[in-house]
Amino acid sequence: MGAAVSPRLAGRRGWPYSSGTMTDAPFPHRHLLGIQGLAPSEITSLLDLAEGYVEQNRSSDKRKNLLRGRTVINLFYENSTRTRTSFELAGKRLGADVINMQSAGSSVQKGETLIDTAMTLNAMHLDVLVVRHPDSGAVKLLSEKVNCAVINGGDGSHEHPTQALLDALTIRRRKGKLSGLNVAICGDVRHSRVARSNIYLLNAMGAHVRLIGPRTLLPSGLDRMGVEVFHDMRKGLADVDVIMMLRIQNERMSGNFIPSIREYFHFFGLDREKLGIAKPDAVIMHPGPMNRGVEIDSDVADDVERSLIRSQVEMGVAVRMACLDMLTRDLIRSEGAA
Amino acid sequence: MGAAVSPRLAGRRGWPYSSGTMTDAPFPHRHLLGIQGLAPSEITSLLDLAEGYVEQNRSSDKRKNLLRGRTVINLFYENSTRTRTSFELAGKRLGADVINMQSAGSSVQKGETLIDTAMTLNAMHLDVLVVRHPDSGAVKLLSEKVNCAVINGGDGSHEHPTQALLDALTIRRRKGKLSGLNVAICGDVRHSRVARSNIYLLNAMGAHVRLIGPRTLLPSGLDRMGVEVFHDMRKGLADVDVIMMLRIQNERMSGNFIPSIREYFHFFGLDREKLGIAKPDAVIMHPGPMNRGVEIDSDVADDVERSLIRSQVEMGVAVRMACLDMLTRDLIRSEGAA
Amino acid sequence: MGAAVSPRLAGRRGWPYSSGTMTDAPFPHRHLLGIQGLAPSEITSLLDLAEGYVEQNRSSDKRKNLLRGRTVINLFYENSTRTRTSFELAGKRLGADVINMQSAGSSVQKGETLIDTAMTLNAMHLDVLVVRHPDSGAVKLLSEKVNCAVINGGDGSHEHPTQALLDALTIRRRKGKLSGLNVAICGDVRHSRVARSNIYLLNAMGAHVRLIGPRTLLPSGLDRMGVEVFHDMRKGLADVDVIMMLRIQNERMSGNFIPSIREYFHFFGLDREKLGIAKPDAVIMHPGPMNRGVEIDSDVADDVERSLIRSQVEMGVAVRMACLDMLTRDLIRSEGAA
Repeated sequence: MGAAVSPRLAGRRGWPYSSGTMTDAPFPHRHLLGIQGLAPSEITSLLDLAEGYVEQNRSSDKRKNLLRGRTVINLFYENSTRTRTSFELAGKRLGADVINMQSAGSSVQKGETLIDTAMTLNAMHLDVLVVRHPDSGAVKLLSEKVNCAVINGGDGSHEHPTQALLDALTIRRRKGKLSGLNVAICGDVRHSRVARSNIYLLNAMGAHVRLIGPRTLLPSGLDRMGVEVFHDMRKGLADVDVIMMLRIQNERMSGNFIPSIREYFHFFGLDREKLGIAKPDAVIMHPGPMNRGVEIDSDVADDVERSLIRSQVEMGVAVRMACLDMLTRDLIRSEGAA
Repeated sequence: MGAAVSPRLAGRRGWPYSSGTMTDAPFPHRHLLGIQGLAPSEITSLLDLAEGYVEQNRSSDKRKNLLRGRTVINLFYENSTRTRTSFELAGKRLGADVINMQSAGSSVQKGETLIDTAMTLNAMHLDVLVVRHPDSGAVKLLSEKVNCAVINGGDGSHEHPTQALLDALTIRRRKGKLSGLNVAICGDVRHSRVARSNIYLLNAMGAHVRLIGPRTLLPSGLDRMGVEVFHDMRKGLADVDVIMMLRIQNERMSGNFIPSIREYFHFFGLDREKLGIAKPDAVIMHPGPMNRGVEIDSDVADDVERSLIRSQVEMGVAVRMACLDMLTRDLIRSEGAA
Repeated sequence: MGAAVSPRLAGRRGWPYSSGTMTDAPFPHRHLLGIQGLAPSEITSLLDLAEGYVEQNRSSDKRKNLLRGRTVINLFYENSTRTRTSFELAGKRLGADVINMQSAGSSVQKGETLIDTAMTLNAMHLDVLVVRHPDSGAVKLLSEKVNCAVINGGDGSHEHPTQALLDALTIRRRKGKLSGLNVAICGDVRHSRVARSNIYLLNAMGAHVRLIGPRTLLPSGLDRMGVEVFHDMRKGLADVDVIMMLRIQNERMSGNFIPSIREYFHFFGLDREKLGIAKPDAVIMHPGPMNRGVEIDSDVADDVERSLIRSQVEMGVAVRMACLDMLTRDLIRSEGAA
């Protein structure tokens, strides 16, 4: 649908749907390390570009050769089938050669430093390096050493920009806008790169963000982030348009953060009753994989009308295609200028 | 060769060899979950289609772009390099984008349900999902939740339909027919999805099936399956055209099923002497990987004239190409009809 | 650059750079199992061919369809992200269908023999099998059983021919020649297939090879290898053009071979001071991954002028493309002749 798509973007490269911002809104970044620092117009450009790929992915020929002859490497220091598969599909559907590197079995285990691994890959003349790493800031460090474009596929508790972009696209397609919406992010905000990237993006696009969770799972410094904070989910969900549930990591459950699963679900798990507090057309989101019965009840997770969880996955591939497209396009520009 | 190939099938899509049943014998199934329920004409259609791919795979250009722009995901909850590689090759040689997902390192480990994983993949707009799972029935359950075609790559001790098809193609190419042949399936029939799928297929195509094994390794309910049962291999192999040896799983060996490897080999391992009981032109088959010296002696496994074990592997790629072709063709049809 | 490239090779298959030796210098080998046994002209042919691929890999369209429809399988019985990725990229950039098989999760674990695995893959009609194996000689054994071309990706402490070829290409591009150079190979020569392949290649091409290391890490039978041996690095590096450092395997460190890391680095680690003993324009090489502070100091490893370590990685992809090209070209010839 694409209510927010600018008509001036249509027709690029023979593509029948709205996409393309090359001449109109240059994307001045060599990497995509986070949402922080992106201008609203740049976010909009990426979302508009992704709209075209949503259509492409729904067609029977899901492959374009835009990135033919280009190399994309997925360098994952954490397991994540979902995100890795999404990036792999995105690269392949653009015609790129895609290589997966998991930390299990990689040179990392032989004691090689992150930078040496990056420099080695860089010497192979890749075009885009997608990196997931357990340490906040590791992806930025790496990006400073390589010639290729780097996409942050999630670093520690720092940022996960493509997740925020796919969430934004999902919301925009349902609600027709981001600006002015009340969005509640619920759960383990403290350790969540998904929450952090979403806060940056939603703030930038004019949405009103609320964080809901127990004190132990909310970060400090919230006063500077332009958000409202609630420790009572029943209060926090009032008048909300979008409910973003976060995944509870198993490793938190038996620690100091959460007394018990049963208690957590009682206070902060989304069920039909709590959902009733939000607006009647409020939608439910979750970055997956879900812990059913922990942070979300199956009844609401599978609500055909209200749950956008499957749509998020679909938008994920399209958004990653847009990011790969935009960042390699940028390379083409700088090559042309050099 | 293709003795059983109908001449009316030649010439489809410019392919010089016999293949294609689009107009003649529609394949009315959205998934390939098992051999049970397939009509003999449908089995023949798949085998005929595979014949063309045997030729393609023997040429220097083994790639066609029939599935260009389509996505195939191999979702394997059990390790199986052989089957996974065969499906991966089949998909790539048809021009599809192929993604591998092993359970090790997948979202499964994060506690996601099978259905959530399936729905997630489904949202990425894949065309074919190949699934191997340790639980009988898991693949069928999953197939009911997704829009794409599902191929059962082996589920528990239930079915392994592409193995039965590749076995049938192997036999048909050597013997020129399936009907009327005496086929002995020997070993751990009880736990074998290979045996089960082969029994369905061979029965459907008019072959006479004998099961040979110790009582502990034969299933109950055999009287309803239209097979003969033997506990003495020397009796069971008399007048047999085809000997299908099954793999003994290591985990059975130290259990109640098998007293010792030496004893098992003595009674139920195929060696030159027992082979002499079968027809002089009887052929030897094994789904692999073989336990040499356990269920089969190296001397007969490597018999150039009698052993078809390598041929089975070759037919495997061709049969899987035929299945991918047929099931996506079906999708095209339903898209055209919608 | 390619100072040593023969002009008569230019212009093959429309490729603008020097490559191609089809008519001039036939490559009479079906496999690439080692450097031993290659004629100097054959080594030169491979290096010349690789020069063209260096250029291709530096362009924005790094993909050619020379191997379209051909199948390359990487069969790795040892983990090596670096080498596997390099071969995978090489295959994909030539348009081949590339399949990775790691020993973890492969049929090996089900007790299948190496030969059975090879025969199984062979039956799938692959064109090139790249094999890494911990046992010296395993790759040759396997090559005798299959129809496809086999490339040794490293077998035990025997050979690693593509590493020697990429090292040679790296040196030739910097120094303009191989003949007459003094090359020091330093460290754990005894267990190093990299050293062994380099000794064969450098001897064949007329370079002067010196081995430097403690007695425990040098092999016996050195008198027959046409090399000079030094146990004092400060003497061995005098007048040297090229310093090849070898990786110290972690498993050696706590054994009888090396008393302590600190002591090893003091005597045999390359640092700025020892580098000063070599020629002023001596270059530094390392096959990677590096143990910084063990066999090489970060200061010299990262020396922009002197260190060729990144260049080696780049040459690796090009050399592997040349090997894939040459060995499949040979297949084409024999097919044409048959």
